[in-house]
Amino acid sequence: MNEFNEYFKSAFTVDNIIFGFDEGDLKVLLINRGEEPYKGKWALPGYFVYPNEDLDTAAKRVLEELTGLQNVYLEQVRTFGAVSRHPFGRVITVAYFSLIKISHYNIQPSSIAKKAKWHSVSQVEDLAFDHKEILGACFNRLKWLVRSRPVGFELLPPKFTLTELQHLYEAILETELDKRNFRKKILSMNLLIDLDETQEGVAHRPARLYKFDKEKYEKFLAEGFSFELKESKKKEKKPRKKVRANLA
Amino acid sequence: MNEFNEYFKSAFTVDNIIFGFDEGDLKVLLINRGEEPYKGKWALPGYFVYPNEDLDTAAKRVLEELTGLQNVYLEQVRTFGAVSRHPFGRVITVAYFSLIKISHYNIQPSSIAKKAKWHSVSQVEDLAFDHKEILGACFNRLKWLVRSRPVGFELLPPKFTLTELQHLYEAILETELDKRNFRKKILSMNLLIDLDETQEGVAHRPARLYKFDKEKYEKFLAEGFSFELKESKKKEKKPRKKVRANLA
Repeated sequence: MNEFNEYFKSAFTVDNIIFGFDEGDLKVLLINRGEEPYKGKWALPGYFVYPNEDLDTAAKRVLEELTGLQNVYLEQVRTFGAVSRHPFGRVITVAYFSLIKISHYNIQPSSIAKKAKWHSVSQVEDLAFDHKEILGACFNRLKWLVRSRPVGFELLPPKFTLTELQHLYEAILETELDKRNFRKKILSMNLLIDLDETQEGVAHRPARLYKFDKEKYEKFLAEGFSFELKESKKKEKKPRKKVRANLA
Repeated sequence: MNEFNEYFKSAFTVDNIIFGFDEGDLKVLLINRGEEPYKGKWALPGYFVYPNEDLDTAAKRVLEELTGLQNVYLEQVRTFGAVSRHPFGRVITVAYFSLIKISHYNIQPSSIAKKAKWHSVSQVEDLAFDHKEILGACFNRLKWLVRSRPVGFELLPPKFTLTELQHLYEAILETELDKRNFRKKILSMNLLIDLDETQEGVAHRPARLYKFDKEKYEKFLAEGFSFELKESKKKEKKPRKKVRANLA
């Protein structure tokens, strides 16, 4: 395998893009690097994958080592491999992403992370490496996700108002949504259970509370969001010549 | 950077999963390897990425070198990095996928590809490396895609019948779909233009022909398939106190 030696001089890393939601604001978890390159800079929590380690395992390990975050569901998003993205040599990085409820987790920086802190996504400026680009790509993926399937209900309290749900979508989509249209769409999906309760102890007129129908949601994801296609049930098939002729 | 040397001993490859559709059958393009490892085995068309080459560029180059395929739109799907997936050392591979119309392209094997041939996806058996697993993962992605957004109209002739469209979906989903339900769903999406023509020169009763409304389709993809959320238009906003009270 001598002719292949030139290929075996690369390294790869994992980078975790952890989006968090809290009180109407969409945030991303960043670390402040205590190691070169980019010492002192804010960066995504990421590091080299060990030679004998799977990618998914590495993503979890690195996240925990750098930020203390455990038991976070990480999903691979995309691999970034621009030739000069790392000053030490050719390093491609596999990006993993998650969307979590900030108040459920404790952040504890260690290893190469001097600090670990939530930053408002809209206010993130310069980052180490190509991390700004990676963050942007993952944010776009998240926007695409919420437009193509219901996402993020688990980020809300167990009982929530439609306004709270709308604020979550507005934070992700970075836009103000039309209230009536939003409610119509959301309710037509039949994913919410009207609790027949209203808010308590609020200064304004108490709003109606909903919870999320987890069973319907799982079914939804399994079958496809809206382009739900029924498999044919041969037994039930009856000749419908007339209808067929009209449609043909 | 001496402490990092141990990380810079890996390589990475790209693998292309090219799905093709022709006459009701879903196929995948495979090469027969003329080089070790797995010499003589069928495999996905893939190879090492040059040290000074971007991933997307490598995917295109490798596909063309091995199969002669040019100008194919490749989309990154996922990166596979099991520790022992390559006998020469640690090699992770970035998978790219495409869905093309077989009759539009000429296949010409060269480089490490002794042969290049379309295989029915359902009949693919043993493949080199972990390529069977990669193929499976990409096939699942394709199934998920067609269930969550309209896909693949471009694989049909410019004028097609609803039966032809249904066969495309059935080939991808590997299942028989209910005819009436399929037609109802497809037509309700308003993505088809009824040409007010019927088939010519067929032995059976000629079926109605449709074409695909490309403009509506692009709009669809941009706005989100079904969870289409309107942004609020402040100017048009009128107080709707009564409705709001009912919904709150």
